[in-house]
Amino acid sequence: MAHIDLKNDLPGIRGPMAYSPETAKPLNKLVEILLRDDNNSLSRGERELIGAYVSYLNDCFFCQNIHGALAGHYFGCDIQQIDAIKNNFLLTDLSDKMKSLLAIAASVQKGGKHVRPEQIEAAKNASATDKEIHDTILIAAAFCMFNRYVDGLGTWAPEDRQFYVDRAPHRAAEGYVDFDLYK
Amino acid sequence: MAHIDLKNDLPGIRGPMAYSPETAKPLNKLVEILLRDDNNSLSRGERELIGAYVSYLNDCFFCQNIHGALAGHYFGCDIQQIDAIKNNFLLTDLSDKMKSLLAIAASVQKGGKHVRPEQIEAAKNASATDKEIHDTILIAAAFCMFNRYVDGLGTWAPEDRQFYVDRAPHRAAEGYVDFDLYK
Repeated sequence: MAHIDLKNDLPGIRGPMAYSPETAKPLNKLVEILLRDDNNSLSRGERELIGAYVSYLNDCFFCQNIHGALAGHYFGCDIQQIDAIKNNFLLTDLSDKMKSLLAIAASVQKGGKHVRPEQIEAAKNASATDKEIHDTILIAAAFCMFNRYVDGLGTWAPEDRQFYVDRAPHRAAEGYVDFDLYK
Repeated sequence: MAHIDLKNDLPGIRGPMAYSPETAKPLNKLVEILLRDDNNSLSRGERELIGAYVSYLNDCFFCQNIHGALAGHYFGCDIQQIDAIKNNFLLTDLSDKMKSLLAIAASVQKGGKHVRPEQIEAAKNASATDKEIHDTILIAAAFCMFNRYVDGLGTWAPEDRQFYVDRAPHRAAEGYVDFDLYK
């Protein structure tokens, strides 16, 4: 049970978003631009993966599973492959660019000052653009907010991971803005 | 110097916001609602204080100083009194409610799961409403994002703390939406 009466029994972030629609609106617009905007050289799958990875590092069950499922949906891979990335992305066949960006995201998760110049250099050497580095840092920072919002309020999350896999195609089709929180 | 070429020499969060106006827009709308909306039983000063305190815990010089200066502006107190709160709010004459909310914010800064039911109980016993607890958690979570955005990109910040004190009245008058980042 959540720490406060959210006036609904929705899982994860949908609970506080339905409780506080006035803050949900800019939060959803932010993720819509960050994770889905077409004017971006990182694919939707790559951006969802950054969010899922940071959520994993923050131990946020709801966020890591829904965004991991979304990354899997876009990549066309199964949940075990996403788990392998979360567990040790260096051992996967992700591109050097994605590996360098996930390393930056992991530093952001610890705190902004943990990002080291040599990590930025490595990303640039792997052909990451300034915008890709900017977006990686803001996505990682934003998930440090979302994860804390979800777990700080003690929201509940479905334990069956298939729930998230099943939802991913709908979320991918609907996006993050103007969807019905209750569906 | 920032880790990427931000195409401007603005300090703190204004640098990346000018670099990425499409994400700056929902970010600024979020803080406008969270920190300034009049439909809130926490004063603007109390909400700025929560942001300043979390920024202090995250060691973000720019954010803790500008939001600390804003809290001081609203409270009509000087920077030393804000510093005393940051250093040990339990020793100050803040209300029991604010002390209980700052304790929750400090847990959120560590991670969402650090918020304990007894902290929520203490806040409720000190007359904090569900909305005040919700807003405290979201403000704390949001500053965990903003602080990482500012420091993860390696932005610069004026060292003279008077800079922030001098800016606070202008920011208080203008708010966070539609202000000119270059002024």
